[in-house]
Amino acid sequence: MKDEDFIRGPVPMTKREVRLVALDRLELADARLLVDVGAGTGSVGIEAARRYPGLKVVAVERHPDALALIRQNCDRFALDRVEIIAGHAPLPLAVRADAIFIGGSGGNLEAIIGWAADLLVPGGRLVINLILQENLGEALRCLDPARFGRVGCIQMQVSALTELGGGHFFKPNNPAFIISCLKENTHDRAL
Amino acid sequence: MKDEDFIRGPVPMTKREVRLVALDRLELADARLLVDVGAGTGSVGIEAARRYPGLKVVAVERHPDALALIRQNCDRFALDRVEIIAGHAPLPLAVRADAIFIGGSGGNLEAIIGWAADLLVPGGRLVINLILQENLGEALRCLDPARFGRVGCIQMQVSALTELGGGHFFKPNNPAFIISCLKENTHDRAL
Amino acid sequence: MKDEDFIRGPVPMTKREVRLVALDRLELADARLLVDVGAGTGSVGIEAARRYPGLKVVAVERHPDALALIRQNCDRFALDRVEIIAGHAPLPLAVRADAIFIGGSGGNLEAIIGWAADLLVPGGRLVINLILQENLGEALRCLDPARFGRVGCIQMQVSALTELGGGHFFKPNNPAFIISCLKENTHDRAL
Amino acid sequence: MKDEDFIRGPVPMTKREVRLVALDRLELADARLLVDVGAGTGSVGIEAARRYPGLKVVAVERHPDALALIRQNCDRFALDRVEIIAGHAPLPLAVRADAIFIGGSGGNLEAIIGWAADLLVPGGRLVINLILQENLGEALRCLDPARFGRVGCIQMQVSALTELGGGHFFKPNNPAFIISCLKENTHDRAL
Repeated sequence: MKDEDFIRGPVPMTKREVRLVALDRLELADARLLVDVGAGTGSVGIEAARRYPGLKVVAVERHPDALALIRQNCDRFALDRVEIIAGHAPLPLAVRADAIFIGGSGGNLEAIIGWAADLLVPGGRLVINLILQENLGEALRCLDPARFGRVGCIQMQVSALTELGGGHFFKPNNPAFIISCLKENTHDRAL
Repeated sequence: MKDEDFIRGPVPMTKREVRLVALDRLELADARLLVDVGAGTGSVGIEAARRYPGLKVVAVERHPDALALIRQNCDRFALDRVEIIAGHAPLPLAVRADAIFIGGSGGNLEAIIGWAADLLVPGGRLVINLILQENLGEALRCLDPARFGRVGCIQMQVSALTELGGGHFFKPNNPAFIISCLKENTHDRAL
Repeated sequence: MKDEDFIRGPVPMTKREVRLVALDRLELADARLLVDVGAGTGSVGIEAARRYPGLKVVAVERHPDALALIRQNCDRFALDRVEIIAGHAPLPLAVRADAIFIGGSGGNLEAIIGWAADLLVPGGRLVINLILQENLGEALRCLDPARFGRVGCIQMQVSALTELGGGHFFKPNNPAFIISCLKENTHDRAL
Repeated sequence: MKDEDFIRGPVPMTKREVRLVALDRLELADARLLVDVGAGTGSVGIEAARRYPGLKVVAVERHPDALALIRQNCDRFALDRVEIIAGHAPLPLAVRADAIFIGGSGGNLEAIIGWAADLLVPGGRLVINLILQENLGEALRCLDPARFGRVGCIQMQVSALTELGGGHFFKPNNPAFIISCLKENTHDRAL
């Protein structure tokens, strides 16, 4: 999906190429439930729901403006498999998630990662999209190797060919960090 | 799909993140036929065929080693919708393509782009993945605005967090250029 | 020198890190004359003149606004070794240059490179700073191996740590290309 | 100076463009003493000493191989203004430094930054070159705003045009971080 497919408003949105990589890392082909934390415009959860007809999405978001945008975007694509929850993560959620995407953390990254570890089924995927150096450092410190395995992290820098003075140059977007990992099957580990 | 999912050998392969962006730009949801030119290991065509069960793929490749790899990869994923054609593009193909991906051009980029314009249905998508500056320049010069519209080009630079001396740094992969465009509906234009 | 050291106005200026690399590649320690083509604010020629007390600089610039800025910057640093020439390069110059810097070409890159080859002493250095893909391609095509040797080209991408929402990220500047080469000693070659 | 100008061996060396930016940020024109910490091949201190005839350099290094290289490089350029000190920084040094460059920290970055603050004269410059994300985070945390002002940090990514299969691409070097700051004049502050 293109960024322009979504109703956006002033809320920051995960950019198209980052969304593609995040969806890939979430490995949703056989997933039943995705939790989209700090969902913003809802673009990651909505593109996931559209791509996988059997997937249910829980979108958690605290900003009223963003909540309204998620609702509008669900309506635009006639999606009834996206449940929208207003509130600050971490918050009580009676679900078992096959995959969790953290697109925004509101300064609560450590607590959200611990909470995500509790919500995920063993083998479930956690994908985190970050912009700030401080959040990158915090996330990598908090991914407890006793709970998460196969931790990978990439930096993605996309530049768009742009006209300037009769020619073209590659105008750089801000770089994004994408962390992905699996919740360890601790039962197997204990045996 | 991960790069490790494919049998690779010494043949260069379109990397995972580039493949994701290329598949996105090819807009294959309603496509019936994709031509994968300079298919290499076949990774783009194969991931497309696996993702879209109604899609037929024609993979064109000239290197015998690569042809063997494409066959092995089709077998691995039990795909019978990928037709493999040995030869140098451009070559006669009695198909109408909804989308064409050029992953390798063997120094024939200008001729291949002209040939692609002939094969594509109006509104069909052309996506080109490039590494070399010379090919980037040639491709942008050859995308005749009378035949192709909505030309976009990005540079993608992915770096992987890598251990070094007790810490980590982002080791840069080589940058890739991805061009995407639509074949113009010249009939509409003429009216 | 810092970018803020110069009086700038609306004229584009070679950025600090690019200027440092350009000055390094020009190898001015024993040079008597540097020609600064498309001098803009004059920053490259002026930093060169301040660093090397025996160096004379000829700054060629066609925009009246920029010419005024070069004069103001020479006054600010009390430099009387910078000769300012108003006009479009290539233009007649009765000098023998030890080094030439091309910071702007006004669409005349091919002609300017040929002219630079004529002005340079054998072994003289030519350094070109470029932003546009088209100019990069043209410059590399025009650097005739019979006239120029040891051609090198780098892309430099500088990002500045920048505050955002309580944290920091590296905000990317536009990338710059820097080409450097030597005028061949054709007399030696012929022997 | 070119990287090839230095005798290198297996010791990591600050690369040419990074060295240029570091030397610029150190603002050595009126400096009497530079301390080069984790000097490696000595390239930063040696290029500084060659550029500024009135400058004395103290190079601190703990690896015997690197110490031998620094000596060889000083001999090559006939420099008698570089004092070489074998040992792990921080270590007692009876000097007042106008500028300090940290090119390597051996895991001691926090202690070295505190020690550098003690050695520097008020208004003295501290420049740190880093590769690892962990060191970047540590350095930024340790630059106490009561002791250091005008903190700036850039990421520099240099790519070299490189031949591949009949064409050229920009092969990326590993990115470097360069932090620069001034020691605050705390006496002035207290008044």
